[in-house]
Amino acid sequence: MNAHDHAHMARALQLAERGVFTTKPNPVVGCVIADGGRVLGEGWHERAGEPHAEVMALRAAGGRAAGATAYVTLEPCAHHGRTPPCADALVAAGVTRVVAACRDPFYQVAGQGFAKLAAAGITVEHGLMEAAARHQNRGFFSRIERGRPWVRVKLGMSLDGRTALEDGSSKWITSDAARADVMRWRARSGAIMTGIGTVLADDPRLTVRLATDEAFVPPLRVVLDERGRLPAASGLLTDEAAPTLAVHGDDVVPDYGDNVDAFAVRRAGAGLDLGAVLSQLGQRGVNELQVESGATLAGALVAAGLVDELLLYVAPVLLGDRGRPLLAGVTPATMADRIGLRLLETRQIGPDLRLLLGP
Amino acid sequence: MNAHDHAHMARALQLAERGVFTTKPNPVVGCVIADGGRVLGEGWHERAGEPHAEVMALRAAGGRAAGATAYVTLEPCAHHGRTPPCADALVAAGVTRVVAACRDPFYQVAGQGFAKLAAAGITVEHGLMEAAARHQNRGFFSRIERGRPWVRVKLGMSLDGRTALEDGSSKWITSDAARADVMRWRARSGAIMTGIGTVLADDPRLTVRLATDEAFVPPLRVVLDERGRLPAASGLLTDEAAPTLAVHGDDVVPDYGDNVDAFAVRRAGAGLDLGAVLSQLGQRGVNELQVESGATLAGALVAAGLVDELLLYVAPVLLGDRGRPLLAGVTPATMADRIGLRLLETRQIGPDLRLLLGP
Repeated sequence: MNAHDHAHMARALQLAERGVFTTKPNPVVGCVIADGGRVLGEGWHERAGEPHAEVMALRAAGGRAAGATAYVTLEPCAHHGRTPPCADALVAAGVTRVVAACRDPFYQVAGQGFAKLAAAGITVEHGLMEAAARHQNRGFFSRIERGRPWVRVKLGMSLDGRTALEDGSSKWITSDAARADVMRWRARSGAIMTGIGTVLADDPRLTVRLATDEAFVPPLRVVLDERGRLPAASGLLTDEAAPTLAVHGDDVVPDYGDNVDAFAVRRAGAGLDLGAVLSQLGQRGVNELQVESGATLAGALVAAGLVDELLLYVAPVLLGDRGRPLLAGVTPATMADRIGLRLLETRQIGPDLRLLLGP
Repeated sequence: MNAHDHAHMARALQLAERGVFTTKPNPVVGCVIADGGRVLGEGWHERAGEPHAEVMALRAAGGRAAGATAYVTLEPCAHHGRTPPCADALVAAGVTRVVAACRDPFYQVAGQGFAKLAAAGITVEHGLMEAAARHQNRGFFSRIERGRPWVRVKLGMSLDGRTALEDGSSKWITSDAARADVMRWRARSGAIMTGIGTVLADDPRLTVRLATDEAFVPPLRVVLDERGRLPAASGLLTDEAAPTLAVHGDDVVPDYGDNVDAFAVRRAGAGLDLGAVLSQLGQRGVNELQVESGATLAGALVAAGLVDELLLYVAPVLLGDRGRPLLAGVTPATMADRIGLRLLETRQIGPDLRLLLGP
């Protein structure tokens, strides 16, 4: 791979990012058609059911695509889904080389896209900037490869690790800027999940309110409602800007009314079987799940080893040792048992600090 | 002030920084002698009792200083201390313009340096990059202007704001890299202070162990020993790499032996009158005081409003809600009473995050 290859793939990754609010449950994909250093066409996947990145880029390149190279962030599809196979379109356009960042794990593609291209005499290479491409579609890869969403737990806390004062007051620890930033992470999520405790205490709407007019597909709102206590008057039900899904224990039969989708899972301790919840959400096409909850649910996910990403907003304030803890029920017995993460990104958002951590 | 002026002052600030481990209790000072864009001489103050920055720069410039401009990060001295007045040296060298970043608040200078220069017909300007210059000497300014050291509280914690597990085990939350970084902050401090609880639990030596062979003046070790319990076998006394000062309540008469300097202050609650402690340290020439203690002393300083700077190492680990809190005795009653700080700097140190916060 030469410098042109890297530059075009970097551009394709940028293009893919444009679809991050809208392609769900599809992955984001970007494509550049180029000849040496010269870009002939660019495209990205915008919305499920609409043309794929390769088709958009080929349209832009027109007849110039013959003999050119296609850079694509994910293996071109080989199957007839809602649109015809991209591999066929690349062959028809006379592209002579395809460089992909990574293989598509979806069972109807999974190498068959590459095979189709190679069978037509096209040079196929893959693995260029693969880590970045997988990170960009981490939700999609998680759902396809592990059968569950990528779990991002969002928390806001003081410098001393507290989410509220002793009496529960917490409005507002973090800044307007931090809360606006959270909206962008919501917009890219397939679902936002919270616990019934947070619903009863704070009555959040969990909708996306962006400061810009960018398009987005509203994420599903999920409430873990063990004992079927979700009030009909709660903002999750009265604000109909997004669908709501209630998950309750299989030992209760709540009547949520017509506006709410619901399913039951096994109880596990005081809560629900979280693995079962995630599996159900995966089956419903949720790639990235953002958890915005209190210490109990966040702690239970951490304790169960189900957190893929921690999105932590740290406000430069001190709330003191009587303040409410970040996580409940996380109790490593020795220092060797402590839960270690890796700092992926640090950024200042207004007066606050935003940390992104992974396992 | 033009671009040359800014560039020379920025360089003078860099030069001053070289003395940060060694000039205490003196301020750090840097000086550049220049003619337009051309640098004729550079100097910095290296150690108390040795020549000042201006003298070093004039020596380097030699006869070329006549008609040139001197850029200095602090007002040139006007008095005979351990060395002759720098104002006189600048006049004798024929410098025609002096640009200073800030006024020296020390009573024997305090404008008299500028006056002496102006009386000799030299153009005097000051205030260029003053904020940076004051920040660099924040300890010196605090001691001279407020009669007490600049108080930096260093703490290491987990992501969830815990300094140890429930049983007190904490070795090690932060990384080797973070602990090596702490040594550099110790080296610039005039004193390191801890509480007797930390001494009895961890037996720290509180000495400076640098990975480099840089020179430093060992900071005084201060232990707040309310009831005179400091054991003769503790590392603070057996390791004689730095002097130790014990502060006890005025209601006890401890026998610390000959190696330990001591003084008594009033008791205040369970601890000591912290304002009195700081005032005593100021009188002893401590510019920057670094506090490395447990939650009790750190919390008492925060609650008393005596913390100027929080140096916080955050390790990307979770210790859980039973872990020990960052600060004890800090109990804002409402969100409006929360203690607000300002994030001054964020830096990754090995796997950990280092935050510097100010009021």
